[in-house]
Amino acid sequence: MEITFENMEDFARGAAFLGTGGGGDPYYGRLLAQNAIREFGAPKVITADDLDDDTAVFTAAMLGSPPVLMEKGCSGDDIDLAISKLEQRLGRKAEAILPIEIGGMNSTLPIMAAARLGLPIIDADGMGRAFPEIQMVTFSVYGCSATPLVVTDEHLNSVVVEADTPARAEGIVRSIAIQMGLSVMLSAYPLTGRQVKDYGVHGTLSLALGIGTAIREGRTTGNPVEALIQYLQTTPYYNHAKVLFDGKVTDLRRETTKGFAIGHCLMSAMDGSGRQMEIMFQNEHLIARENGVIKAIVPDLICMVDRETAEPIPVEHLRYGQRLKIIGTSAAPIMRTPEALEVFGPRKFGLDEDFIPIENL
Amino acid sequence: MEITFENMEDFARGAAFLGTGGGGDPYYGRLLAQNAIREFGAPKVITADDLDDDTAVFTAAMLGSPPVLMEKGCSGDDIDLAISKLEQRLGRKAEAILPIEIGGMNSTLPIMAAARLGLPIIDADGMGRAFPEIQMVTFSVYGCSATPLVVTDEHLNSVVVEADTPARAEGIVRSIAIQMGLSVMLSAYPLTGRQVKDYGVHGTLSLALGIGTAIREGRTTGNPVEALIQYLQTTPYYNHAKVLFDGKVTDLRRETTKGFAIGHCLMSAMDGSGRQMEIMFQNEHLIARENGVIKAIVPDLICMVDRETAEPIPVEHLRYGQRLKIIGTSAAPIMRTPEALEVFGPRKFGLDEDFIPIENL
Repeated sequence: MEITFENMEDFARGAAFLGTGGGGDPYYGRLLAQNAIREFGAPKVITADDLDDDTAVFTAAMLGSPPVLMEKGCSGDDIDLAISKLEQRLGRKAEAILPIEIGGMNSTLPIMAAARLGLPIIDADGMGRAFPEIQMVTFSVYGCSATPLVVTDEHLNSVVVEADTPARAEGIVRSIAIQMGLSVMLSAYPLTGRQVKDYGVHGTLSLALGIGTAIREGRTTGNPVEALIQYLQTTPYYNHAKVLFDGKVTDLRRETTKGFAIGHCLMSAMDGSGRQMEIMFQNEHLIARENGVIKAIVPDLICMVDRETAEPIPVEHLRYGQRLKIIGTSAAPIMRTPEALEVFGPRKFGLDEDFIPIENL
Repeated sequence: MEITFENMEDFARGAAFLGTGGGGDPYYGRLLAQNAIREFGAPKVITADDLDDDTAVFTAAMLGSPPVLMEKGCSGDDIDLAISKLEQRLGRKAEAILPIEIGGMNSTLPIMAAARLGLPIIDADGMGRAFPEIQMVTFSVYGCSATPLVVTDEHLNSVVVEADTPARAEGIVRSIAIQMGLSVMLSAYPLTGRQVKDYGVHGTLSLALGIGTAIREGRTTGNPVEALIQYLQTTPYYNHAKVLFDGKVTDLRRETTKGFAIGHCLMSAMDGSGRQMEIMFQNEHLIARENGVIKAIVPDLICMVDRETAEPIPVEHLRYGQRLKIIGTSAAPIMRTPEALEVFGPRKFGLDEDFIPIENL
């Protein structure tokens, strides 16, 4: 895979799909990456297998509310500062940038960071989707420390956190992020090349680009949702893909609380059958129930797309009366192990249900 | 002045008086210092004038709720960690310890820190009393940076903060402290010897010891409150000292909110005259009004003592029906300048009144 100015629109669209409702507007994410590419040149994409075992891999991400980030803007100085403070703390220079999550804006921000720093970006991430909390990543499941990590804001305030567990780091960083205005830059989980090879979800930059491309090309043939489903079925992780529901939004409740966008969305079927689907979310969609019956549940992916254009719809763009198709897909196998479900299975979001793979529903 | 195991009881009592309601129970503060002295030996006390201009001066303090600290206990490892993380960040070893505030437990914790680290402690502080927020210190008034600072907790999690203003540092640290359970250790305001000489409130360890000694000795003559007032009138800062009120507590409201103990206390005069005094506090007492007329206002000191024994009463020990004398004293001159009032004058606590020196009331 190659990153270019031109393919960032497809890439951001695919990443927004993998954001499963979280991660913000792909338009803004794309602009950030494109501006950085124009100014600094496109970063080279490397695979996890290209890494030496001791390569110093740094992550770059925003944490908080994407709409707030869009209001604040993003100069990049805050990302640079997060990386340089972590380099200072570790006494080691970053040698490659990894997106910690491929979903939403946190796929394009690392491209921006890599471009600014002249570093390669790795075609992998830590979840193959998006998740709301710091500990919800494969690296945490398999014992990598989330800290030392650095949080920065647009005023170039910085905080270096060292915590005994990733969940504790999450608590500390969330309170800092709320204090800093609910949108901060973060470089967490300093990793080695070996750890990325062993615990990363590989190839997800390529998959985001493939998804975005499939949607765009599907629009020329008139059925982008079908084109998207067909593409997903060819992928190594998202192959159990189906349209869960075709309906319009009839009820929407959400609030920004404790640093998250939490709420639910009710939809009625377009076919007039009276069937209803309820989707609950904490930044990302967590569970889809049709008339009370589970159709998909976290960590499998639940994505909302416009029923005509297949454009992914982030939670903040949900509106009463919108006509959407709900697509469910399987998560990467490394995200569905018993150890992984201990960190980001349904119970960790306060749900009473256990995980059931989408292919069994 | 010399610190000894024996004089820590007087010292902690005097420091509790200077805590003006905040800073916690002197009994616990004394135990912390005495345990450290027994284990590591008493630290040497030096004056600000003993410092070289470039001596690396570190502070040590707790931030949050003293009753929580008492419940958690305090091993000292968290203080050591705060100092060593700041040394690591600055690339410089601490050469002397300064109490950032002399009021309450934050006078004995630095003694504990100095004893553990084998460093001298400076007979000075940054306010000559206690204050609730990080920016409320002379060093901030006169342009010294509060950061880099380090926050640690009892699990030995640590956070290094760099902020553009002391008030911003306060916001970030307060949110971290709430997240960490409302009692954390803090090393902020890394200073030079020159800065301590220029902006410190000098001699306040000696004054705390003098106050505690005057109260104890006054008890043997039968009028400790009078003995205390007489002693205060001989001091360089607290010389405008008087009993503002003699009464019993008839109403008490307080809540722990936003990381502070906030409330007010109503008292009725013991002389049956029906006069009433109201005292408002945010950790420390802010204003004393008798039938609506101001009798003393922050940054001057408003202290509550038992009317018989002159034992200082911290806010958390206030009880309905208690019989107390309210003592008001002047603050150090460096605390009453226009620049200082911009940082910790009445308006900074949300009061509608301007500062009036107690000697003019």
